[in-house]
Amino acid sequence: MMKCIKCRGKAHIKLPRHNARFCADHFVEYFHEQIQKAIKKNKMFTHQDNILVTVSGGKDSLVLWEALLKLGYQAEGLYLDLGIGDYSQKSKELCMYFAGKRSLTLHVVSISEWLDMGINGIAKKVRRPPCSSCGLIKRYLFNRFSVEQNYQVVATGHNLDDEAATLLGNLLHWQTGYLSRQSPVMPSNHSNMVKKVKPLYRLTEKETGAYAIIKGIDYILEECPLAVGASSIKFKKVLNDLEIQSPGTKQQLYFGFLKKGKKTFMEEDKVELKSCTRCKQPTTIDLCAFCQLSDRLSSS
Amino acid sequence: MMKCIKCRGKAHIKLPRHNARFCADHFVEYFHEQIQKAIKKNKMFTHQDNILVTVSGGKDSLVLWEALLKLGYQAEGLYLDLGIGDYSQKSKELCMYFAGKRSLTLHVVSISEWLDMGINGIAKKVRRPPCSSCGLIKRYLFNRFSVEQNYQVVATGHNLDDEAATLLGNLLHWQTGYLSRQSPVMPSNHSNMVKKVKPLYRLTEKETGAYAIIKGIDYILEECPLAVGASSIKFKKVLNDLEIQSPGTKQQLYFGFLKKGKKTFMEEDKVELKSCTRCKQPTTIDLCAFCQLSDRLSSS
Repeated sequence: MMKCIKCRGKAHIKLPRHNARFCADHFVEYFHEQIQKAIKKNKMFTHQDNILVTVSGGKDSLVLWEALLKLGYQAEGLYLDLGIGDYSQKSKELCMYFAGKRSLTLHVVSISEWLDMGINGIAKKVRRPPCSSCGLIKRYLFNRFSVEQNYQVVATGHNLDDEAATLLGNLLHWQTGYLSRQSPVMPSNHSNMVKKVKPLYRLTEKETGAYAIIKGIDYILEECPLAVGASSIKFKKVLNDLEIQSPGTKQQLYFGFLKKGKKTFMEEDKVELKSCTRCKQPTTIDLCAFCQLSDRLSSS
Repeated sequence: MMKCIKCRGKAHIKLPRHNARFCADHFVEYFHEQIQKAIKKNKMFTHQDNILVTVSGGKDSLVLWEALLKLGYQAEGLYLDLGIGDYSQKSKELCMYFAGKRSLTLHVVSISEWLDMGINGIAKKVRRPPCSSCGLIKRYLFNRFSVEQNYQVVATGHNLDDEAATLLGNLLHWQTGYLSRQSPVMPSNHSNMVKKVKPLYRLTEKETGAYAIIKGIDYILEECPLAVGASSIKFKKVLNDLEIQSPGTKQQLYFGFLKKGKKTFMEEDKVELKSCTRCKQPTTIDLCAFCQLSDRLSSS
């Protein structure tokens, strides 16, 4: 029998990268400890802050919300309806079910309120990959919503697999600008900009999945249908292959970057943020990318 | 019919990362051009220099020797007998056959002349992976031999696959010291140190294989039996998987590093070279790693 390294009871979860095995209770304890470590180490937020968790209906963001509440933080949710047919419908229902069952505040915003159409329509109209418009829109609306609603910080469900895959992609293309900015915490450096944090960056996708099962969280299993073939999925696969052969690879890559690699890229990229001439949101250009997109969608 | 992009004749080789197809003759031309580009761009050597090519019996180093001669350079060979049974025997014969057929000068040195045993025995005695002792010994003897024999530069057969795999490994572990030094050219910075260059760094393993076939070069097909399970092989596989999905990945990773990444690591690592108190070869410590290994092998 595989034994829990904490209580010597029956272990259900094996974590080769930590050379550890846990029963369900001690896995939850480990999981919470890793989140606390992430929060403390990066001074993400305190028990006094109002946190906005952006939830997609997937396991990571719902698990994050659950864990933050268990750890005594004040966290409310925001679901952004991307208008991707059944996928969006189902994921919205799962978020509402999660919030309803726990009597939590969940804000629901639809991108069609802002841009008159869903991601599919936008991608077709601007003739760019859907993930690229989707990323831009999410960053903008998450920030704008949280500033207007007076949240101190936005927390997203990015896990170690996400961060390591993004890092690998940035390294393969030597995107030095992105490399200098990739971080578990993005401070506010504009009056209309909220701090963004990723409290799950020390935990893998497998671990958030296990936590969801233990806590009985219903989440959407499907990947976004528009993300099929996205390079992030390809990089995750490669890192999973390496992880099986050398447990700890993802962690070494990402934590090593944070400790040793990141600072070497710091000098490269110093951007001055100003306010968009129309919407007053932070931007490096006169009319921000969101307002430009909005103009492009309403023309012709 | 797939056509050569140069002469519109029948193409035999397809290079997706360059979006090119070549007949045998134009492939050879392309191959030579890439080597010339590597030499010129990095000021590796001139037609006046005496070059020592270290040959292993594998395709890359024999192909390098052949191509340098075709390009009119003065290149002689050094085969280092590692004492790995049949593998070393066979690879030595292939090097001697190559040199004999072309009436070239090939030096043959055996590590047993220096350390009284082969790599297998050394690895067992020092209880470390064979590749680690082998690398140390090769670096030392290649350098010492070329200094004593008055060669201006040592050329090794490292190709793009080798360099990209090494880079990926250094990045996964954030070996900032290695990252600051990884380069197609290592200048001499000690009176007993020879310049080292890698003229094949712009060409893939597949391409050196094709060149070997076209030129009728016999080489040893087997990988070194002691390298089974080496992490370099694992990283090459991962990069090959990515290359198939996105042709150009290896090149982007390595060339991008040379252009944009490498300089960020430059400040990190400034080592002062002195002379080994016993053998006078360059070292960062008093008694160099080779002399220490030698002592360890002769003790007990």
